[in-house]
Amino acid sequence: MAPKLDGFFSQVDSMSEHFISRLRAAVAIPSVSSEAERRPEVVRMGQFLVTELKALGADVEARPLGKQPGKEHLELPPVIVARYGNDKKKRTILVYGHYDVQPAGKEDGWATEPFELTVDDKGRMFGRGSTDDKGPVLGWLNAIEAHQKIGLDFPVNLLMCFEGMEEYGSEGLDDFIKEEADKYFKDVDAICISDNYWLGTEKPCLTYGLRGCSYYSVEISGPGQDLHSGVFGGTAQEPMTDLVRMLATLVDTNGKIQIPGIADLVAPLTEEEKSIYRDIAFTMDSFHESLGSQTTIFPDKESTLMGRWRYPSLSIHGIEGAFSQPGAKTVIPAKVIGKFSIRTVPNMEPRDVDKLVFKFLDDEFKKLGSKNTLKASLQHDGKWWVASPNHWNFSAAGKAVERVWGVKPDLTREGGSIPVTLTFEQATGKNVLLLPMGSSTDAAHSINEKLDKKNYIEGVKLLGAYLHYVAEEEMVDA
Amino acid sequence: MAPKLDGFFSQVDSMSEHFISRLRAAVAIPSVSSEAERRPEVVRMGQFLVTELKALGADVEARPLGKQPGKEHLELPPVIVARYGNDKKKRTILVYGHYDVQPAGKEDGWATEPFELTVDDKGRMFGRGSTDDKGPVLGWLNAIEAHQKIGLDFPVNLLMCFEGMEEYGSEGLDDFIKEEADKYFKDVDAICISDNYWLGTEKPCLTYGLRGCSYYSVEISGPGQDLHSGVFGGTAQEPMTDLVRMLATLVDTNGKIQIPGIADLVAPLTEEEKSIYRDIAFTMDSFHESLGSQTTIFPDKESTLMGRWRYPSLSIHGIEGAFSQPGAKTVIPAKVIGKFSIRTVPNMEPRDVDKLVFKFLDDEFKKLGSKNTLKASLQHDGKWWVASPNHWNFSAAGKAVERVWGVKPDLTREGGSIPVTLTFEQATGKNVLLLPMGSSTDAAHSINEKLDKKNYIEGVKLLGAYLHYVAEEEMVDA
Repeated sequence: MAPKLDGFFSQVDSMSEHFISRLRAAVAIPSVSSEAERRPEVVRMGQFLVTELKALGADVEARPLGKQPGKEHLELPPVIVARYGNDKKKRTILVYGHYDVQPAGKEDGWATEPFELTVDDKGRMFGRGSTDDKGPVLGWLNAIEAHQKIGLDFPVNLLMCFEGMEEYGSEGLDDFIKEEADKYFKDVDAICISDNYWLGTEKPCLTYGLRGCSYYSVEISGPGQDLHSGVFGGTAQEPMTDLVRMLATLVDTNGKIQIPGIADLVAPLTEEEKSIYRDIAFTMDSFHESLGSQTTIFPDKESTLMGRWRYPSLSIHGIEGAFSQPGAKTVIPAKVIGKFSIRTVPNMEPRDVDKLVFKFLDDEFKKLGSKNTLKASLQHDGKWWVASPNHWNFSAAGKAVERVWGVKPDLTREGGSIPVTLTFEQATGKNVLLLPMGSSTDAAHSINEKLDKKNYIEGVKLLGAYLHYVAEEEMVDA
Repeated sequence: MAPKLDGFFSQVDSMSEHFISRLRAAVAIPSVSSEAERRPEVVRMGQFLVTELKALGADVEARPLGKQPGKEHLELPPVIVARYGNDKKKRTILVYGHYDVQPAGKEDGWATEPFELTVDDKGRMFGRGSTDDKGPVLGWLNAIEAHQKIGLDFPVNLLMCFEGMEEYGSEGLDDFIKEEADKYFKDVDAICISDNYWLGTEKPCLTYGLRGCSYYSVEISGPGQDLHSGVFGGTAQEPMTDLVRMLATLVDTNGKIQIPGIADLVAPLTEEEKSIYRDIAFTMDSFHESLGSQTTIFPDKESTLMGRWRYPSLSIHGIEGAFSQPGAKTVIPAKVIGKFSIRTVPNMEPRDVDKLVFKFLDDEFKKLGSKNTLKASLQHDGKWWVASPNHWNFSAAGKAVERVWGVKPDLTREGGSIPVTLTFEQATGKNVLLLPMGSSTDAAHSINEKLDKKNYIEGVKLLGAYLHYVAEEEMVDA
């Protein structure tokens, strides 16, 4: 039986200015987690959530995470956990979001003050954190408040987990989740994360997969110190020469990874999977627009989506230790560190990937016949994640999308990683759904980050509607 | 007839503390030409020379060079030109040096205050500019003063040209030299520059050759802005991938330049030239020490010296626009600029080199089949220089070295460039001699720059003795 939601929807509409004010107050707190001097602002933002949640009648706790590893003079901002409802007859849904933001400054090229929510005549609400991730976090609070205002029974027990270090590697969160899996999170039936984006600007989506990432360093060293190329050029083997020759062997211009064995680890494409790409709302024109050029590997939509979602890729990010400034410097760098990463997909086990990468680098270095020294290492990795989009958590969300937006959502994956997704899945054993609020043009992490007013307000309806559908959805996990 | 110099030498010895005080006063002026805020100190250092030279009775002028190109709020420091003696019966020798210095700060790791001359118990005089190039510049002044003190007739008309922008590309100097070639410099019979170093620490040398340098940029661009490798990896052709593949084609681990045609431009090695390398005071042990490793291309002295002096080399310096910091960043840079340079030797004409380089880069880029855009350009170049070491200017200097140091100097070349050398030669048509004062361990441009007291004081004798020998040397230019 479809939930009765018209009253809730009207209530959300009538409270929209209030919800925007709440977002304005949140954006005004510059909770930049990567800047030590702004740590008090991150803590203040957590406190803002505590106050708001308490006012809504939730049980709230600010859980300390201890000192920041490597920067022990800094206290990590607390994880804000809250419970709204404790009815054994209801399902318990855990939602996650983060209250810290990326750095931002007017001098970076923002058209408006980044920490003042500025709404233009197209309804675009500009401000750092508007879409990533303060809008979605407040979406849950707004949904609770609208229920209270019209006296509508809240359909689930809602557990909330909001962290303050997401933009700085979610320091401390993994341990917290594992620790609380059978404590604070033990009743959880399903999980919903709203911290990603639609594939385009028109059609909502549910996201069921993420690529992993294995990030490597290749260090080549030789001389005892940087050298002058006039004095030593032609007499010493140069680490930079060796490094570019090594990096050049990794991948070709069309993105084909040259490391033997990598392709064999990738799950084969089935006919069924192949068919789903056809209907995804995505065009090469919009892709060219977001790329800012026509320099794509593939001419067609399907190959491009598969290239982003279900095949591995290798990117060379840069070189540490070489001359990187504008102008000309005649240095022979003594030690250079190339950085590259591989986006991983099913069924690439990170340890298997490491083995192939290190063997390849060793082999290629031997071919150079160099007296320099090679040191290859893994900097960090995160595994890929793929959930079943046939799970009741997804089917409920699909119905909610259809009810609010009037279209069936696309089922999408992401090329990037949201590591906490896999952590929640592994720690709780429950299905995780990614339910985005914002659209592809929101410019999270860039200048002029925004959230469209429509996505915010309809998003509040969507989050509320999702909780109603998920409360009633038959427990099918295909 | 050998000049009578014993009295001059004794006088120099007796004035050594005075000469060191003069160097101390000069080092105390932080005349760093690359730092805008220290420009007044550069000007003050020029004024110091004016005052000292006037006190010695020289005709001195501070010639303005106008505004600094690209930084028009800054006045270039003047060229200090001076004439000591104007006797038509004497030869006129032009000497060049520079009074500006490299940046230096205690925080860079200096063991002493860089702008306080600090003499240790081994007679090492530490201080920025001690050896590069304030010691040699003051050497000429000291030689004049010692002559005056003992009433010894000065053997030549000495023209001096001291600039204040050498460490920042000698801005404005080339035009000045060309302009004054048939004016201030019109009587010049030969030129002597003391601004380089012995090959080792024990044996003096005369330097008759320098390599040139052609510095190139290879820019590859594609996307409209930097991209996230999670979102775009596997769908866009990455400029960094293309760039490392391009750079990898330039040179091999053993320094062999892979650009077709370059080797054909190099003057063939004659048996006569080959024989001179055997006797040069240079050991692979000391070379390993200065390199700080054993990662040399060649096992033997002769090949190493030829690799530095008479063959071209290609060094890859770095990449602008890519990720260059410590740590991990998952960026796909939108535009990357590789920097490399070729050290050139006889008979490589810079324009011929450019042609080969650009054609090679174009060909290699075509092979990639990339949709990205290549833009290759020459950043700057300076031609190689080789003088005849049989010229009377060199033979006079050789006799002076033998008289002061008791050994025949090695005839050396340098792997690096001193562009003003070629400018003086071309503008005046006269022979240029490089007559170093300091030794290979002086660490010019590095922390803990020093000049050994012995090199300074014997160096004053050498400069004076050179002027006596060059005054009398038969005019042979073989």
